[in-house]
Amino acid sequence: MDEAASTACSEGHALTKDYMLQQTMLRVKDPARSLDFYTRILGMMLLQKIDFPSMRFTFYSLGYEDKADTPADVKERTVWTFSRRATLELTHNWGTESDNLFVQRSDRFVCFSMLDLLWLSLLSCFHAGHIGIAVPDVYAACKVFEEQGVRFVKKPETGSGLCSGPGGCWIEILSPNNTFSLMSS
Amino acid sequence: MDEAASTACSEGHALTKDYMLQQTMLRVKDPARSLDFYTRILGMMLLQKIDFPSMRFTFYSLGYEDKADTPADVKERTVWTFSRRATLELTHNWGTESDNLFVQRSDRFVCFSMLDLLWLSLLSCFHAGHIGIAVPDVYAACKVFEEQGVRFVKKPETGSGLCSGPGGCWIEILSPNNTFSLMSS
Repeated sequence: MDEAASTACSEGHALTKDYMLQQTMLRVKDPARSLDFYTRILGMMLLQKIDFPSMRFTFYSLGYEDKADTPADVKERTVWTFSRRATLELTHNWGTESDNLFVQRSDRFVCFSMLDLLWLSLLSCFHAGHIGIAVPDVYAACKVFEEQGVRFVKKPETGSGLCSGPGGCWIEILSPNNTFSLMSS
Repeated sequence: MDEAASTACSEGHALTKDYMLQQTMLRVKDPARSLDFYTRILGMMLLQKIDFPSMRFTFYSLGYEDKADTPADVKERTVWTFSRRATLELTHNWGTESDNLFVQRSDRFVCFSMLDLLWLSLLSCFHAGHIGIAVPDVYAACKVFEEQGVRFVKKPETGSGLCSGPGGCWIEILSPNNTFSLMSS
């Protein structure tokens, strides 16, 4: 490890000791195709599916866990899901499956029209994925982040916050224990 | 969990039982700023830094680990790094720090020129991040993926493969034990 890299690093605040990288969120256009791919091909397990009718989206949390550990009760299962490390959160915005302009990323070389270019640019800025950090207390964590000058895209009023990392990468701050309340939104 | 979601899921191949979501890769423009953010603000630890002079990039692997567990030996440390779940792999392509057109994602509302739009679109297609799945045997895993019809961006000749998931999301297939050889590339 060289000196410049070591010098750029610092110890985190004492509050950060129980933080974990809980999720990587990717938007998907075709949930059935993605669920098939991540379970059958990559061997992940669907941990939880949550619909958000008022915001017209559904997310599917996937990870490498033991089926035998899955709580049967929906509330316990939700808390358990959000306390797993290294999950993939596939987000499906309702309607995008029939929107030809919605692409997550091209998997082939194609000619784009200017409208496609505009759309892709907007998607890359506003529709992109994020990573999620699970913390024991969202409000305490976000208060410290604010004191440290972190910019928020969404303050944590509803149980989770969304802040902007270097280069604008979005980072969700969530607490496993708060997540069940999201299911009624 | 509803029936449509359950029906879309299948058991993975027996080989997938030891797979794990090892990394989420994000490109960064200013490594010092990013290292500061992810260690000081989010409390992560720098696990390993690896330079790839021939390909003009450096990556920094970060995660939530116990400093006391870090192997001192560079080879052991590299294998250990790539066998951690839920790491963040920050990739710095040399030269992008002084390239004003290089943005990972806008963190503010700005007016884009058509050239910016074109650049952003190309970035979103070809310069985006990926997730990485660690597997015990890259070649065995990629063989099964191919048999299952997965498209490869890069075949696993050099110890790791890169395949294309639904919607074109890139997925690296790597083995912790192969990673040290990457350091000499």
